[in-house]
Amino acid sequence: MPTTATSLLRIAERGVEEAMAMADWGQVATYIPELASVSSEQVGVAMALRDGTVVRAGQASKPFSIQSVSKVFALAAVLGRVGDDLWLRVGREPSGTAFDSMVLLEREAGRPRNPFINAGALVTTDAMIGGREPKDALAELVRFVRAAAQDDAIHINARVAESEKATGHRNLALTHYLKSHGNLQNAPDRVFGTYCHQCAIEMSCVQLARAGSVLAQFHDATGLISEKRARRICALMMTCGHYDGSGEFAFRVGLPGKSGVGGGILIIAPGRASIAVWSPGLDHYGNSKAGTRLAEFIADQTGWSAFSK
Amino acid sequence: MPTTATSLLRIAERGVEEAMAMADWGQVATYIPELASVSSEQVGVAMALRDGTVVRAGQASKPFSIQSVSKVFALAAVLGRVGDDLWLRVGREPSGTAFDSMVLLEREAGRPRNPFINAGALVTTDAMIGGREPKDALAELVRFVRAAAQDDAIHINARVAESEKATGHRNLALTHYLKSHGNLQNAPDRVFGTYCHQCAIEMSCVQLARAGSVLAQFHDATGLISEKRARRICALMMTCGHYDGSGEFAFRVGLPGKSGVGGGILIIAPGRASIAVWSPGLDHYGNSKAGTRLAEFIADQTGWSAFSK
Amino acid sequence: MPTTATSLLRIAERGVEEAMAMADWGQVATYIPELASVSSEQVGVAMALRDGTVVRAGQASKPFSIQSVSKVFALAAVLGRVGDDLWLRVGREPSGTAFDSMVLLEREAGRPRNPFINAGALVTTDAMIGGREPKDALAELVRFVRAAAQDDAIHINARVAESEKATGHRNLALTHYLKSHGNLQNAPDRVFGTYCHQCAIEMSCVQLARAGSVLAQFHDATGLISEKRARRICALMMTCGHYDGSGEFAFRVGLPGKSGVGGGILIIAPGRASIAVWSPGLDHYGNSKAGTRLAEFIADQTGWSAFSK
Amino acid sequence: MPTTATSLLRIAERGVEEAMAMADWGQVATYIPELASVSSEQVGVAMALRDGTVVRAGQASKPFSIQSVSKVFALAAVLGRVGDDLWLRVGREPSGTAFDSMVLLEREAGRPRNPFINAGALVTTDAMIGGREPKDALAELVRFVRAAAQDDAIHINARVAESEKATGHRNLALTHYLKSHGNLQNAPDRVFGTYCHQCAIEMSCVQLARAGSVLAQFHDATGLISEKRARRICALMMTCGHYDGSGEFAFRVGLPGKSGVGGGILIIAPGRASIAVWSPGLDHYGNSKAGTRLAEFIADQTGWSAFSK
Repeated sequence: MPTTATSLLRIAERGVEEAMAMADWGQVATYIPELASVSSEQVGVAMALRDGTVVRAGQASKPFSIQSVSKVFALAAVLGRVGDDLWLRVGREPSGTAFDSMVLLEREAGRPRNPFINAGALVTTDAMIGGREPKDALAELVRFVRAAAQDDAIHINARVAESEKATGHRNLALTHYLKSHGNLQNAPDRVFGTYCHQCAIEMSCVQLARAGSVLAQFHDATGLISEKRARRICALMMTCGHYDGSGEFAFRVGLPGKSGVGGGILIIAPGRASIAVWSPGLDHYGNSKAGTRLAEFIADQTGWSAFSK
Repeated sequence: MPTTATSLLRIAERGVEEAMAMADWGQVATYIPELASVSSEQVGVAMALRDGTVVRAGQASKPFSIQSVSKVFALAAVLGRVGDDLWLRVGREPSGTAFDSMVLLEREAGRPRNPFINAGALVTTDAMIGGREPKDALAELVRFVRAAAQDDAIHINARVAESEKATGHRNLALTHYLKSHGNLQNAPDRVFGTYCHQCAIEMSCVQLARAGSVLAQFHDATGLISEKRARRICALMMTCGHYDGSGEFAFRVGLPGKSGVGGGILIIAPGRASIAVWSPGLDHYGNSKAGTRLAEFIADQTGWSAFSK
Repeated sequence: MPTTATSLLRIAERGVEEAMAMADWGQVATYIPELASVSSEQVGVAMALRDGTVVRAGQASKPFSIQSVSKVFALAAVLGRVGDDLWLRVGREPSGTAFDSMVLLEREAGRPRNPFINAGALVTTDAMIGGREPKDALAELVRFVRAAAQDDAIHINARVAESEKATGHRNLALTHYLKSHGNLQNAPDRVFGTYCHQCAIEMSCVQLARAGSVLAQFHDATGLISEKRARRICALMMTCGHYDGSGEFAFRVGLPGKSGVGGGILIIAPGRASIAVWSPGLDHYGNSKAGTRLAEFIADQTGWSAFSK
Repeated sequence: MPTTATSLLRIAERGVEEAMAMADWGQVATYIPELASVSSEQVGVAMALRDGTVVRAGQASKPFSIQSVSKVFALAAVLGRVGDDLWLRVGREPSGTAFDSMVLLEREAGRPRNPFINAGALVTTDAMIGGREPKDALAELVRFVRAAAQDDAIHINARVAESEKATGHRNLALTHYLKSHGNLQNAPDRVFGTYCHQCAIEMSCVQLARAGSVLAQFHDATGLISEKRARRICALMMTCGHYDGSGEFAFRVGLPGKSGVGGGILIIAPGRASIAVWSPGLDHYGNSKAGTRLAEFIADQTGWSAFSK
């Protein structure tokens, strides 16, 4: 298997070239005005390896809004805080419906199917706040991500957060709906505001790949997250990480991943690499189009798969 | 990691003992009269290893009706026959709904979400028949399973097949519904009859574990299935193998698995083992209750996980 | 109010003329091959009045397949046979979904929302059969319709019935689904076959208008149906008679009606008229397009409304 | 038919007596704290007749919160203001789902099925506000109701409005959801606040029956609403006035009605009477339990029905 840094660099560069050569970029998310102005014709990738090396190609150092990729870090932080009690309030099943759907939520009386659809992430954020001030919870989350990435420059983009707060009526609807079912401890406005800030964390591919290495289980030293918990979060990423495109991603890429509408995807090859790809154009599920193809290319070329012998 | 045959035997035996010691067996499936008479208080396990060894404990040699586990073999056989054209007719996404649900099928105009819910399996069976006589298609499927298990004693239990044919109104409803959407080539009665026979394949844990070794990717010699296809089928088992309990199985066990209402589960630890567990009592999703716990115990004790480093 | 036969004839003729002058006929139902060959550019109307007069215009004497309009007569006959016990098996609520939907049926465990969607009509047909031979039940239904219309020439078109039996996979799916929920006494094939024959009753507008006069409550003499029952069937026609277009029909026409995919609609102005309109082109709910407009024209011109003072 | 004031008084009194004699009152709505303290064991009725007489029995003069009955008056007022343009934003079909459901709303991209489910009423309220200040819109609505009832004492109970504003997370969720689909002109908080105030209009049965007489079409003099519009609103009340219990109400009572969770129901016998019943205990659809029985009793005894000859 071609897992030397040199061969991986070759793969990353070829992957970026192929992505650039294709015309079909998908649509940049428009529902958050601040993101709508990003050009779709960009692609970057970074792979953090076991030995600390980071392989990079394309626009690997350009910061983007990680959006729903933040759900992975919030989940890890919350599980560290409240443990398995979270699962009394959120399920662990793929939903089979869109990321912002209310249908199952209504049918299942306000208990979201999993922590990666918006409703489940809002409950996770509420648990992250606990009895604290939102800013204290956000500070802890940012500390967690910085520690994972070993990079203190990571921050929240306040303009993006405000942009989403001003226009995110669907997420605010979900928040009030969860409150009406008694599945929020905090006031809906606080939960929604915290969620908007969490989604507005900004990272480059290099930073995100490094941060994901806690899930790839080679940062034992950091003590941020146990191996068992990392494996379980990977299982959730595999079954639920791409909303109603999760099965397709598992089938084509074969590795756990979590996407965001900013165009980023964090992909974990446990024990081998933490991979971040970014390209802002989205498919109709809300997952990065070129990013998904790039992930598939890397998986094909490296042979990395959760299901390989 | 404790992967010698001796240590695995110890794990298997302890797993069976713990399962026997627990009172909570779940309910034997009653909708197929022929299965309703099976006693729920039974448990067996077999692990086929890379070197051909089979570790076994409990009632590992007792034949049971593999039921929906057959969907894995039918899918493998059909992909070998028609290739990726199958995916024009069936999706690759978890459904988020019960194994025999019509809701999404109606909403999505007769294209089942994946080949492991009943509707998708019926389409797969239809593709397996192709233009042939049902008995020829079934003969080929049995040959495939026998070759995979290297055991010519494997057969279809005709009484179980007839029992299901006489009472399987819900599956017959699904079949006619698929026909109304033009997603069946053959007459509904033929597809349904073939499906009932396919589900009535009988195997012991030992036979099933051996048959699954084509998915564990150490039977290269048999040439029955390519590694890439095996990985992809494993991905589908991970996201869709336990109906609307798939996420939970992935979270708790961390390995791809496929359950059947006969109480069997086939679990794949790629490159390491093909594991068959059996216990006829089911949870409310229709998955073996003690079998799932046994699978979790084995995964915990061996450290085997699709997501471990 | 212009309710002399002469003024009504003028209204009927003008309504037909306006319908003929409009280009937009809708689509003839194609799912029953025998009906697909009917030309859409036809329209007829008949109004049976309290005094026995029948006002007619357009193709009022041309026989058509009454299809789902038969559900009204089957319901009336069954209520006469089993009384309110039918309501243990079928609801009385608009479904908000299409005529052949399975979604609510699945969610509500096989109890159809009302007797006018297909699932509910199949349960009604099963109750109509009771323990009898299908042909005896059908004979009774035909006798009921003939007595209501005072016309012994009314009959079932066997070719249409066979055409529907050969292709009605969706209705057969519904039938097996109801059986799987224990909501059918008879074998699914028998219920489905009987239903196909019932739908294939053939009548002209004149015959249908006459038959409907038992619901308009001026045929007291016939003793076929009590006033209270007639009113209640009218209430069901108002809320459920046009599937998910029922609210719109009530809003625009203001009278209880029941449509069929053959293009016929039976409309009741209690105490005043039983009206049959026919035009084979359908809107996307499966209701006659020109027929609905004609019904609205008549209601507007006569001032007849369930809600007028 | 027993339609003298004397015989109607007898019917009203007997209906109230029978309601009082029954033990089964249903549950008072608890989701609005201010309403939760009302005792369920109360019942009142008033019938406003063509000649201006008002027949009353039980607690006919006790004010209650009309809640969703206000949707009828808001609809009438809005149709007078914006005309049929409202129907571009709201449908006219029974939903087949609960009064506060989001399922269809999601499926149908934010266009509510009808103006009597909460989502549709919120859109109606938004149209009622138009470009005005909420208080001006509310003032106009109160003027409309006062004019209809010819009673200037009718007012909004501010405490009830505030109670609902503080706890109505589900309705606020619906409001934000509608906003996310672009189906609100005004800010969600303003629409929700106005809606809470509209629902908090307080009337007695006598006042409500009088106000409803514009729909019974004998207040021609007031010029508040045309006969055609009154008939159409009655049609909507018949098909949608009791949420997913509308079909049952139509079947049993046979008259158009609109219920509210305060326990009131306005029932219209066009040309004959406008009837208000009140009893605060609700059935599981959210409709007054004793009130529905009382309405059925009155319809039975008077023979009034939209479907009688």
